[in-house]
Amino acid sequence: MKVVVTGAAGFLGSRLADELLLNGLEKTKVTELILTDVQTPPARQDPRVTALALNLTEPTAADKLIDEKCGVVFHLAAVVSGQAEADFEFGMKANLDATRSLLEAVRHKAPTAKFVFASSVAVFGGDFPPVIDDLTCVMPQTSYGTAKAMCELLVNDYSRRGFADGRAVRLPTVSVRAGVANAAVTSFASGIIREPLNGKESICPVKKEQELWLTSPETVVKNIIHAAVVDASALGKWRAINLPGLCASVGDMVSALRSEAGDDVVSLIRFKYDEFIAKIVTSLPIRIDNSRALKLGFSVDPNFSAIVRSYMKYDLKK
Amino acid sequence: MKVVVTGAAGFLGSRLADELLLNGLEKTKVTELILTDVQTPPARQDPRVTALALNLTEPTAADKLIDEKCGVVFHLAAVVSGQAEADFEFGMKANLDATRSLLEAVRHKAPTAKFVFASSVAVFGGDFPPVIDDLTCVMPQTSYGTAKAMCELLVNDYSRRGFADGRAVRLPTVSVRAGVANAAVTSFASGIIREPLNGKESICPVKKEQELWLTSPETVVKNIIHAAVVDASALGKWRAINLPGLCASVGDMVSALRSEAGDDVVSLIRFKYDEFIAKIVTSLPIRIDNSRALKLGFSVDPNFSAIVRSYMKYDLKK
Repeated sequence: MKVVVTGAAGFLGSRLADELLLNGLEKTKVTELILTDVQTPPARQDPRVTALALNLTEPTAADKLIDEKCGVVFHLAAVVSGQAEADFEFGMKANLDATRSLLEAVRHKAPTAKFVFASSVAVFGGDFPPVIDDLTCVMPQTSYGTAKAMCELLVNDYSRRGFADGRAVRLPTVSVRAGVANAAVTSFASGIIREPLNGKESICPVKKEQELWLTSPETVVKNIIHAAVVDASALGKWRAINLPGLCASVGDMVSALRSEAGDDVVSLIRFKYDEFIAKIVTSLPIRIDNSRALKLGFSVDPNFSAIVRSYMKYDLKK
Repeated sequence: MKVVVTGAAGFLGSRLADELLLNGLEKTKVTELILTDVQTPPARQDPRVTALALNLTEPTAADKLIDEKCGVVFHLAAVVSGQAEADFEFGMKANLDATRSLLEAVRHKAPTAKFVFASSVAVFGGDFPPVIDDLTCVMPQTSYGTAKAMCELLVNDYSRRGFADGRAVRLPTVSVRAGVANAAVTSFASGIIREPLNGKESICPVKKEQELWLTSPETVVKNIIHAAVVDASALGKWRAINLPGLCASVGDMVSALRSEAGDDVVSLIRFKYDEFIAKIVTSLPIRIDNSRALKLGFSVDPNFSAIVRSYMKYDLKK
């Protein structure tokens, strides 16, 4: 199976690529893997991989990327929430128009390809019930969430019309991301664990009581791959799926870090309230009913301590 | 107040223009009225009116239409559901891209203008609860509904960012439309009343048991104008409003016609099931909770008989 990954130089895209090379698409082997990003994704010692630099906001990019042999497209490339909020035009171009171009290329060249679109819980916002389910309306309070919700609608309509076999997966906030902080407003959700474990101070811009809807990188990568495998008929009339997550407050996260790594590590976290960030984070959902996703075969992390342990085992000192 | 109406040669646009000239925006007078459509809207004997032909899918059209003095833009122009389903590209261009261009023009020239966007209950579809409310998710099963839902998201984000003061009003199926049938899949909902009253046979492509969510033209025009007047702060974090409607089955509609106009008129209705139309109509919502809209000051028709009487009084033999 020929597979394409956009955003492949990013944290999740890179993990996804590694996992696809190692374990394939559950029962299907990956025979060819195209990795693309604005910068050429890191080279891999595997003859199946082609790495190429492509700016997906350029009109011809999607056409260069997609061909008749594509079996799955994982579209992870995006401008993150903080940046899309700061630069509306660029956000819409990268998050909406580029996705639309890719869908058009799939439609005309590989309409049976699975198109896995990385959406986000940021499609929810404003007024929502205490627990969100699959019939809860989207009401994004960021331009990032707006573009994601618009793309979900496109993915659904392209699938309904047989232009593509789309699946839009709404990612919870990913923690603990390895590497460095990014411009996502939820970047701190990794930073407050990662930086202290690496002996560095970390600023938490929200209150201890703030709850978040979280997933580990391992679980979300597994789930993104599962989205390409799940039977289309099981999805019914709506191709967007709330990927499973767990709810933890910043206080819970700090406690988990304390039990796994001790007081000295925790002492490196400093609380410095940032109104811009806190306001957006407050608008994000914190509890989602996982039952549909679990029934569809997606996975969930057991608790936040397990997430911290997993980071310490696989990512720390890498 | 300078007001712009797109789709002004259409049935609703034309009614809206007449009402704006006659009664203004509730307490505000209309001092200048720009009416536009693909064909020049019919001339009116009123010095406040400028009628112009504009193809809103052309890149410069929105910029020609909007200027700094615009106080309200009523954006009614659209490709109807049947046509958007038959021609995906044209539907997206007219229903999504043209709206986006207008919003951009408003943003850069008249960001405080009210932007009233005519959306539709066709944003709902697939799985929905027995009664839809304002927190029910959209799940369009047509490309028309998809584009409308995408525009609602844009209207909301432009409003949130202060780029426009948007209001997206979801119109129930309008019945009885005067004039001739159009390519909307719900065109029959007017046809089965209008044609018999005009002595013509009319085909009903759905079953008698099929229920519809309906509004009269008078009420919906009043409500579209009210959308420009309602206080932004009352709308909260979501600028889409389900306009009030009433539920009636085709059987109820026929009974109302019988009581108002007699058996001979009703005998002109012929039932001829059309699977393409029936399938789309079945996916449309039939019961929506009117309470938020009524609280916001929108109006509702008392029953379908009143709608038939109103058509007979004001539109018949015109």
